[in-house]
Amino acid sequence: MKTTILIHCPDQSGIISAVTGFIHAKGGNIIYLDQHVAKQANVFFMRLESDFDDNTLNLEGFKNEFTTSLATPYQMQWSLHLDDVLPRMAIFVSKYNHCLYDLLSRYHSGELKAEIPFILSNHTDLAYIAEQFNIPFYHIPVTKTSKNEVEERQLELLKEHNVDFMVLARYMQIVGSRLIDEYPNKIINIHHSFLPAFAGAKPYHAAFERGVKIIGATSHYVTEELDAGPIIEQDVTAVSHTHTIQDFIAKGRDLEKIVLSRAVKLHVKRKTMVYNNKTVIFS
Amino acid sequence: MKTTILIHCPDQSGIISAVTGFIHAKGGNIIYLDQHVAKQANVFFMRLESDFDDNTLNLEGFKNEFTTSLATPYQMQWSLHLDDVLPRMAIFVSKYNHCLYDLLSRYHSGELKAEIPFILSNHTDLAYIAEQFNIPFYHIPVTKTSKNEVEERQLELLKEHNVDFMVLARYMQIVGSRLIDEYPNKIINIHHSFLPAFAGAKPYHAAFERGVKIIGATSHYVTEELDAGPIIEQDVTAVSHTHTIQDFIAKGRDLEKIVLSRAVKLHVKRKTMVYNNKTVIFS
Amino acid sequence: MKTTILIHCPDQSGIISAVTGFIHAKGGNIIYLDQHVAKQANVFFMRLESDFDDNTLNLEGFKNEFTTSLATPYQMQWSLHLDDVLPRMAIFVSKYNHCLYDLLSRYHSGELKAEIPFILSNHTDLAYIAEQFNIPFYHIPVTKTSKNEVEERQLELLKEHNVDFMVLARYMQIVGSRLIDEYPNKIINIHHSFLPAFAGAKPYHAAFERGVKIIGATSHYVTEELDAGPIIEQDVTAVSHTHTIQDFIAKGRDLEKIVLSRAVKLHVKRKTMVYNNKTVIFS
Amino acid sequence: MKTTILIHCPDQSGIISAVTGFIHAKGGNIIYLDQHVAKQANVFFMRLESDFDDNTLNLEGFKNEFTTSLATPYQMQWSLHLDDVLPRMAIFVSKYNHCLYDLLSRYHSGELKAEIPFILSNHTDLAYIAEQFNIPFYHIPVTKTSKNEVEERQLELLKEHNVDFMVLARYMQIVGSRLIDEYPNKIINIHHSFLPAFAGAKPYHAAFERGVKIIGATSHYVTEELDAGPIIEQDVTAVSHTHTIQDFIAKGRDLEKIVLSRAVKLHVKRKTMVYNNKTVIFS
Repeated sequence: MKTTILIHCPDQSGIISAVTGFIHAKGGNIIYLDQHVAKQANVFFMRLESDFDDNTLNLEGFKNEFTTSLATPYQMQWSLHLDDVLPRMAIFVSKYNHCLYDLLSRYHSGELKAEIPFILSNHTDLAYIAEQFNIPFYHIPVTKTSKNEVEERQLELLKEHNVDFMVLARYMQIVGSRLIDEYPNKIINIHHSFLPAFAGAKPYHAAFERGVKIIGATSHYVTEELDAGPIIEQDVTAVSHTHTIQDFIAKGRDLEKIVLSRAVKLHVKRKTMVYNNKTVIFS
Repeated sequence: MKTTILIHCPDQSGIISAVTGFIHAKGGNIIYLDQHVAKQANVFFMRLESDFDDNTLNLEGFKNEFTTSLATPYQMQWSLHLDDVLPRMAIFVSKYNHCLYDLLSRYHSGELKAEIPFILSNHTDLAYIAEQFNIPFYHIPVTKTSKNEVEERQLELLKEHNVDFMVLARYMQIVGSRLIDEYPNKIINIHHSFLPAFAGAKPYHAAFERGVKIIGATSHYVTEELDAGPIIEQDVTAVSHTHTIQDFIAKGRDLEKIVLSRAVKLHVKRKTMVYNNKTVIFS
Repeated sequence: MKTTILIHCPDQSGIISAVTGFIHAKGGNIIYLDQHVAKQANVFFMRLESDFDDNTLNLEGFKNEFTTSLATPYQMQWSLHLDDVLPRMAIFVSKYNHCLYDLLSRYHSGELKAEIPFILSNHTDLAYIAEQFNIPFYHIPVTKTSKNEVEERQLELLKEHNVDFMVLARYMQIVGSRLIDEYPNKIINIHHSFLPAFAGAKPYHAAFERGVKIIGATSHYVTEELDAGPIIEQDVTAVSHTHTIQDFIAKGRDLEKIVLSRAVKLHVKRKTMVYNNKTVIFS
Repeated sequence: MKTTILIHCPDQSGIISAVTGFIHAKGGNIIYLDQHVAKQANVFFMRLESDFDDNTLNLEGFKNEFTTSLATPYQMQWSLHLDDVLPRMAIFVSKYNHCLYDLLSRYHSGELKAEIPFILSNHTDLAYIAEQFNIPFYHIPVTKTSKNEVEERQLELLKEHNVDFMVLARYMQIVGSRLIDEYPNKIINIHHSFLPAFAGAKPYHAAFERGVKIIGATSHYVTEELDAGPIIEQDVTAVSHTHTIQDFIAKGRDLEKIVLSRAVKLHVKRKTMVYNNKTVIFS
């Protein structure tokens, strides 16, 4: 049984030794260990892939003992994931298809190891893609006055389908506070600029206007403040005076889909941890 | 005699044919022609390298005729440069030496084809480098109350040495308005972020705080508004949670010197044109 | 009527003036002019986008006069393309779908301005994609003994459909000499390494074995010598000791599709010229 | 007392737990732990930064016990480095100054934490730089017949100065077998191409001839086979048909110095391990 354990806690001497000793004592073989100390904040982070013999490991007992022996004394926040339980990911889209196609083709080829219980959109334009890939599609239109009901309906769907995290694949609506509260660091957005430059609407137009020589895309966890959540992944590409806004948009599409897919894959592999509105990425 | 001609004017049909026909009629051989139309603004830009027989070309006559036949009817702003007249470049520095060393080593190897009449600093820390390279060094300290005199003295030096353009190689003072007015699009700065992100002071600290995954550097012409002038060149490098602010600064130094040197070389080769606070770079 | 003219000829003084003067005299407005001189080989290249009044231009007359006045005296090889006549592109594939999907989604969105008369494969695996996009699909299996007939049948199809150029979107067969001869600089391949490193089979395995820190992809025109034709476009991505061969392959897929699509777009816009087994790319 | 321990051994269960438990038992605080398993070769690699109380640690006793308790049973190859003992680095150069300047300016600013007992060259051109930085300079000319004596003299100098590793900063001579044997994985070279492409002489000329769109530089450990040793670091930059061989060389210089300095810094921080002619880089 392969497991991934994520830990963060106040830094102090002896944590690595204590944790690895515990795993070893329980018959686990550590396959990979990543660790980081955020010096300024004095926080210790660890990600641990281990392999256990299925016949001998009592999962509940393991968790209880881990809590008593390690989590409580070291004040850890921690989680344990079984590698053969795939995370369940809902995709929110509007009208652009490039990010959706990219995610689904990686899903389809087995590169992106997640379940996709449904695709949700405020428009019907991309329903045909959901159909191509045989994934349920929900159309929840958004109007100025429907925001509360929309959020209610979204939450219902997420609960009903046991969704673990959401991907906003160029979903052109603001996500409501209740969703953000219920899914902290579990809503991944793609913004079409190298944040913090050009937050908000029409970043390619703003980049063109400013005359930058590089454009970018940023994938981040969604927080209350628009385009200000913890950054997971960024990438850029060169532009010049010869490019029109349309060229920026076309080049940007290639960035957006790659950057978003990279971020989603990191999340699915539990390689991201969040602290102080920043990410630790164990890549 | 090799020449470079830069032109910009309202776009209309027939300009290229008219200009190249004129050059040809004057016995010039066009070596390279670059051209661009900014569609939204309807502005035409051209850069033309030509070779003339030294014995037959009357330079004053050529300029007069160009004005009458082309510049006036097409409402051109234009300039003609002789390739063997090197532009005269003053370098302003404070205490950091990496950009200065980089520029001077390119100057010394012949890669950067400019004259350097002097280096100016508000500190004396880098005087030894000026001495190593045998270039006059002026120390003009800046205090809160001396700004006017400083600017006066700087202008005198620039005039006295027939300076064509200035490079702020991590000069940590605001350049005064009179200098900016007298040298429009002739003062090149390096800012240590991918503008417009992190304009102003301490960009690496701000980038660290924000948790970006990419840091950058931007070289631009100085205008009245801080860090908001036309961008000439930008580049970026990846960072991660493992990097401290000191690592950002060290990685940034490598970017700054390369980006600044690229921008200076483009300017020296007259490959930059400015319009609407943006650059056309004929690279 | 928008046109693109491509010219190459021995370099000499006055060509640009002669050509632009001719276009102007025929009532054409030059929209964009790109030009290059390969100094060592003394060859002049030009690409010219012009706009003509449809009512007054006699295309045959124009071509005849261009030949007499310019092409013959200057020994030009030249071609004229009407921008509203889309080039006809056949796609050859085997079993991998990522490049095919990428091309077709750009075709579908209007970003790739070409006709696609058919998709051809030596397998049937990707027939479903052709069906999704409503494009004819031909299955021509290849065996050791069928090579001649295969080539015969391919040529027939290409002729029958008036194909202008071919894209080998991870087509895992050697293309025959007759095709190469009949379509010189008109067969675009994607090779999954930064050529000339790792030419031939299994480049990701070879790259892994060698322990490189960067992998790449190269799009080039097909010539008789394997993976040795004129390079149109290359790109790379960083790898490390943490990546397996499977990771190399997954990262490589992202490179391959982007690099191939860029090359195809350059070809479709007639921005590529070939000389001495190298390309001039007017980007 | 800060220490860095490097370990590699056959992979098996329990190593991490055993090592971290040992360090903890000896009063050490593990600051950073990096680890990797090369699956195909079944080799385990670890790098461990630990902090010990200077008053209580008996270094010889620690080493003996580590050998008995861990190194012998786990068949480890291992080394322990004290962080305040700077490695001693000799620099070999010929006539190009860019890599030398870059290394020395990083050394001078404290970014490169090494001692530089001497600079050695087969020419006298760069003696002035050694003088600027106040570092002993040895001129050992190389002729066809002097190779044995040269190697003898080099070895003497290296021993005499207790050199830990060498950097070939564009040293244009083949290093002899005896040096390579005595300093395995301790001679760092910079090659001016993205290896394995363009190994050997004149790579920029070969790259120009081939018409590549990307050029690169590679830093690697020197082995008997020319340009075929374990790669530490690579980087690339875009080129186009507009660039001459001279442009390739100038762009390449910027790559070479940055890539070499990165590799040297990784080596100095003991972040490189070598196995099967490949590197593990704990960056």
